[in-house]
Amino acid sequence: MRDRAPPQLPPGASSEAEKKAVKEWFENLRDQICEAFEELEDGLEGSMLPPGRFERKAWEREGGGGGVMSIMRGRVFEKVGVNISTVHGSFSPDFAAGVPGADQDASFWASGISLVAHMCSPRVPAVHMNTRHIVTTTRWFGGGTDLTPMIFNRKDAALFHAALKEICDEHDEDYYPRFRDWCDEYFYLPHRGESRGIGGIFYDYLNTSDWQSDFAFTQDVGRTFLEIYPQLVDAHMRERWSEDEREQQLIKRGRYVEFNLLHDRGTQFGLKTGGNVEAILMSMPPEAKWP
Amino acid sequence: MRDRAPPQLPPGASSEAEKKAVKEWFENLRDQICEAFEELEDGLEGSMLPPGRFERKAWEREGGGGGVMSIMRGRVFEKVGVNISTVHGSFSPDFAAGVPGADQDASFWASGISLVAHMCSPRVPAVHMNTRHIVTTTRWFGGGTDLTPMIFNRKDAALFHAALKEICDEHDEDYYPRFRDWCDEYFYLPHRGESRGIGGIFYDYLNTSDWQSDFAFTQDVGRTFLEIYPQLVDAHMRERWSEDEREQQLIKRGRYVEFNLLHDRGTQFGLKTGGNVEAILMSMPPEAKWP
Repeated sequence: MRDRAPPQLPPGASSEAEKKAVKEWFENLRDQICEAFEELEDGLEGSMLPPGRFERKAWEREGGGGGVMSIMRGRVFEKVGVNISTVHGSFSPDFAAGVPGADQDASFWASGISLVAHMCSPRVPAVHMNTRHIVTTTRWFGGGTDLTPMIFNRKDAALFHAALKEICDEHDEDYYPRFRDWCDEYFYLPHRGESRGIGGIFYDYLNTSDWQSDFAFTQDVGRTFLEIYPQLVDAHMRERWSEDEREQQLIKRGRYVEFNLLHDRGTQFGLKTGGNVEAILMSMPPEAKWP
Repeated sequence: MRDRAPPQLPPGASSEAEKKAVKEWFENLRDQICEAFEELEDGLEGSMLPPGRFERKAWEREGGGGGVMSIMRGRVFEKVGVNISTVHGSFSPDFAAGVPGADQDASFWASGISLVAHMCSPRVPAVHMNTRHIVTTTRWFGGGTDLTPMIFNRKDAALFHAALKEICDEHDEDYYPRFRDWCDEYFYLPHRGESRGIGGIFYDYLNTSDWQSDFAFTQDVGRTFLEIYPQLVDAHMRERWSEDEREQQLIKRGRYVEFNLLHDRGTQFGLKTGGNVEAILMSMPPEAKWP
């Protein structure tokens, strides 16, 4: 990924009130998403399975902070995990060298929400969404969302991108083209010569010197996800699918596994530095194939 | 892995006749293994599926050489791949720096056999076997075999290790304890705090200055695998298994995927340097779960 280091801010630039607001926003977004997803579970009539419900599990991080995993195994969502974490501490010297604002003072605070949904139906696209705020001696927002259809659907792809473009444009007309390209670049499997899905947006090191505005943009990304993704699910979750389509889905999920374990920097970093394995690997598909 | 660099040999130490003998041995071993595995397929009576047969597919390497994949999808072997490759060329400067005998002259020749078997029955252990010969300005043998039971079976583990110990001891009484420990160290998933299976042996940079003897050891590892693994398969392939056991197998295979993509240096190196993706990922299980 390109290195877009934000401008250096004075130490202590992030007030406790601002951190609290960020943390509460992520928790609030998680609650809204879980509610919307449970409503989709309720909305699937005629299934022999009961509607799924999220289960929550808190975890603590050695070194400071922790998080809450919310997992649902349902009849629309085969497996969906929403993880909230707010952690603080000090980066290892090796790692700190690569983090903006951490080379002199390695202490950090970070809060974020991370979501991956693997769907029962191959007609419903899988999705990933993550937004985060990181504070060192400087601070920035990052995140994004990308859609992984199992069966390509032009209309879904257009709706997803249009919703993201609309909200990006409200903040800065430069955002959508930059963040869309960044997403395409990041979610690419070089050894397969394949993109993970149909993209979306990805951004990092966002610091325009207007903290309120950057926070507002990050909130809008979450809100847009909450609006558009349930629409796509609802549009397809009642369609019948064939065994061939299910097989195609399981193979596509294998690519998702390859991306997560070979390329996803969050996963690799988390696993190699002793993060919470269950929370990190919540993104793995419930079932995958390499026939 | 520990770095056991072999002594520097004069350039040209490996004659064309020796390379030819190594390559032919690997091909011969492949033929014997495929035959033995097809016999096991024939030996499962009462299945509604036909006995599996290997299919071969040759591939070429840009830069020199190539290989042949043999894959079988059967009624005993859910998916087994045996890959033979003999390649030559010049290492990239970055990579050459870490390879014994390649820092001054980056040209190399390498030949090997690599096998991974994922079994239909959770009662039959999965297995990996690989042996290879690498020639730079020096040369060495490497390889090993390790067993991954889905359901732990003390007798199988004892038989597998006893067979390996016996053949190691015939060559050097130091080999078995060293190569067993090396295997345990290598096939360990730190983020899970779990071993991949019950181990076996793993060796690398084997160069005792007696090329014939090192080659003979490598051949004996192949022969021992060919003798012991089909016995273990035959002992269990007719047992009934439960859905719970199958589920346990699919979850254990997820760990296999994690090892291959996160830690296996062959896989990572191959994928990152543009190797033959199909041959490299032949080791992936046909189906895996992260429920």
